Formats: sequence, structure tokens, C-alpha cells
Amino acid sequence: MTVPAIAVVDAQTPGNVGTIARAMKNFGFTDLLLIDPPPLDPMGEAYGFAGQARDDVLPAAREITFDALVESYHTVGFTAITGENATGHVRYPVATPTELGDDLARTDEPVALVFGREDVGLTNEELARIDRVCTIPADPDYPVLNLGQAATIACYELRELALADDHLPDLTRDRADPAAVERLHERFADLLVTIGHPEEKRPKTQRLFRRLIGRTTLTDREAITLTGVFRRAAMRDRNGSDRE
Amino acid sequence: MTVPAIAVVDAQTPGNVGTIARAMKNFGFTDLLLIDPPPLDPMGEAYGFAGQARDDVLPAAREITFDALVESYHTVGFTAITGENATGHVRYPVATPTELGDDLARTDEPVALVFGREDVGLTNEELARIDRVCTIPADPDYPVLNLGQAATIACYELRELALADDHLPDLTRDRADPAAVERLHERFADLLVTIGHPEEKRPKTQRLFRRLIGRTTLTDREAITLTGVFRRAAMRDRNGSDRE
Repeated sequence: MTVPAIAVVDAQTPGNVGTIARAMKNFGFTDLLLIDPPPLDPMGEAYGFAGQARDDVLPAAREITFDALVESYHTVGFTAITGENATGHVRYPVATPTELGDDLARTDEPVALVFGREDVGLTNEELARIDRVCTIPADPDYPVLNLGQAATIACYELRELALADDHLPDLTRDRADPAAVERLHERFADLLVTIGHPEEKRPKTQRLFRRLIGRTTLTDREAITLTGVFRRAAMRDRNGSDRE
Repeated sequence: MTVPAIAVVDAQTPGNVGTIARAMKNFGFTDLLLIDPPPLDPMGEAYGFAGQARDDVLPAAREITFDALVESYHTVGFTAITGENATGHVRYPVATPTELGDDLARTDEPVALVFGREDVGLTNEELARIDRVCTIPADPDYPVLNLGQAATIACYELRELALADDHLPDLTRDRADPAAVERLHERFADLLVTIGHPEEKRPKTQRLFRRLIGRTTLTDREAITLTGVFRRAAMRDRNGSDRE
């Protein structure tokens, strides 16, 4: 598996370069290649839009030529404008980022994801020299993404090539164990008794509650809290302190 | 299935509102709700960043209150800052956009995806009133996405709720049929004979070529073109016109 470099060809606006650098840092990418970049003023929009990538990804960006890019990397060009059919191969066939991720997970060669200029993207001449074409599935009526947004989605979709793990808490660790879930259902059953829920309706109501809880991926904290609430509600009811 | 509205709470920079509107249009979303928005000057950055969404999504945006939002929609709040475990529930448990899409595909109720301000996102007070929390998986060292980039990824990831189809050409239509693939392999075999490839190595070389072609999802155009190239190469060779 290889962590792809991100290459930006002839970007016009420094802000887009900063946006791309930030997305790279959010999703674990580090190697930013710039072909004919605009001036990147440390006080300007590139650094302003880069978030914490201003400290590493952006200052470490390397300027290279298009020739050096295609010689050194397996290149994947991103374009919104795809060929309509198999009669030409400049922009056809196209892969989606998902398909690309599956393939790149099985390679160790240097890979560069290549993005073009804001107004016209990558030219036919550039795409002809690029190994593979990728497009982000979008609305047929308006598939043209902004440069920074396209690169953001590519980094997000391919994050598993770059990140060992993500920031999501481990829900499995906190999931309520079956015994805690059963205690909750027992207290709910008690509550139905003590509030005088009609006996013939209790099994159906208990099943309804079991189905609701069953699809929540209940946490231990949720189970304990609700079990306590129902227990106290049933006790108060037995003492008559909360009933008319 | 419902097409979610996109709600933006207290955005500070008009450019981000424009970026969000563009992502919405790229992925088929139409209903933009603004809570305490900045002024959106038709000559300013919101319209400048909106692409073709300047013609519909952005001018059709509705300003509503947070109270009206939580009363009228099943609300899903996006945040990068998640709870660490089950001891608090303001930001826990969290769903990913993928999980969210699976659930929303099975509902017809009005849904709003809610994004917060640039610097601090959604407050705890706001999240406490929101039905469900969603986070975009990112680098644990820097999971905080820019507002516009977060909404872009959400729209991309949930596009199947909003789009009947995407703009990708239908590759299945153009796939080479098995007979065309066999003709290609026959011509390749002929070519090995006519160039004098050692007889004992031919089966192995043919298998290598069959495996290579087998994993390319070959198009009819590619099959026809290559078959023609190999046929002519073999003919030239037989005529001796291209061999020393």
C-alpha cells in the first residue's frame, strides 16, 4: 500500500492550494506536489486556508515539472468532464475514487493524484500522458466541482491509504452487554405493571420497546441510566407518592 | 427516502455559504437553511464561490430560527469534536456519514444536516437539542475540517439520497464481449508465432497477456484496436517488410 502524493497543476488561486493542504492533513496525506503554482505568500490565502497544514504540508510542498511528475509516479488524473463512450480514450474509461482506493491498496509504487487548474481542469494533452482517469460521481446536470472541493473528496475517499485509524470513538468498547439490556427490559416490564398498563397489552408493549432498544446499539451508560430511571419510577408508583 | 436539507448555523464567512451551495448543487441537494447568516451580497464571496448554485440553491436559501429547525426536522448535527466515551451524550455516540445514509434511505420524514460556525462548530447547547450526531472520519491528530469542506464531504457521501443517477458514463454498455476478447488473444498468439517467440514459452506468455487483459474491464474499442494492431503486425512480419 502506498500513500499517494497530491499534485496540483497550474492552480490559479493560492486559497485553493491552502484548502487542498488542509484536506490532506485532515486525512493523513503529506506529500504535496505543485506544477506551475501561484506565489504562496506566508501571509496570504494559501496559508490562511490551510489550517494546521500551514505548519507542515504546505511549507513542505515541492515544486516539480509535469515531465518529472509523469516520469516518477503512477499518475491518476481527476476530471469532471469524462468521455461519453469508448470512441476516445483521453477521458475514458474513468474510475471512481472508491474503485481507485481498492486498486491502490494493492500497490507499493509511487502514486500521484493529479488535479488541474480551476477553470479548465487538466487539458487533453496532460491527460493523454497520465496513466489513469478518475472522476467523482456527481449530478449529471452539474458535475464540475471546485478544485479544492474535488481534492477534499478525493482525500476523504482515499483516507484509508493514508490513515492507520480515524478519530471516531470505539463504540464497541462501550456497548451494553446483553445482561444489562435484559435488566433494562425487566425494569420496563415492572414499570408497566406498577402503572397499571392493561395486562393483555403488556407483551406487545414490551416487544415494541425491545425492538426500539434493539436497533439503537445501546451503550452501557444508556442501559444503566434508563434502568435506574424505570426502577425509581416503579418504586415511586408503588409508594403512591407520584400517583393521583 | 428523503432529500435532506442543509442547515448552516451562524456562519461567519459568506464564502463558506457559497462553497456549501456549490457542493449541494454538485450532488443534487436543493434546500439550504440559514440560521443567523452573514450578509450574502450578490456581488460578494458567497455568490462568487457558489458556481452554478448562484442561480438556484443560493438565492432560494431560507433564513429560519434554530427553534424552527429543531421543531420541523429530524436534525443531524455534524461535529469533529466527539465524546470520548459513553459518560456524556452531547457528542456521543456518533454516526459516520455512511451509517447515516443507510438510515436516511429508509425514512420519509424531513431531515436537516446541521453544520456550525467556522471556529467552534455547533455548541453543546445546540447539539443537546439535535436528534443525532455525525462525524466525518479523519486523522485523530487533526480531525477538524473546514466548514465548507465538511459540508462538501457530507453532500458527496449522501448523494444517493439526492441523485437518481450520476454523470459517469455507463461502462457496461461498452464492455468488449467475450468473442472479441478471444479474437484479441488469437491475434496475440499469431503474433508470438510470427515474431519467432520460443514455442515452449508461448503458453506462459499467452497466459500472462490473458491475465493482464482480464483485469482491465476491456472495452469493445480497446479490443478492436489492439486486435487490429496485432493482426497488422503479424502480417507485416510474414511479408518480411518490418524484420531484419
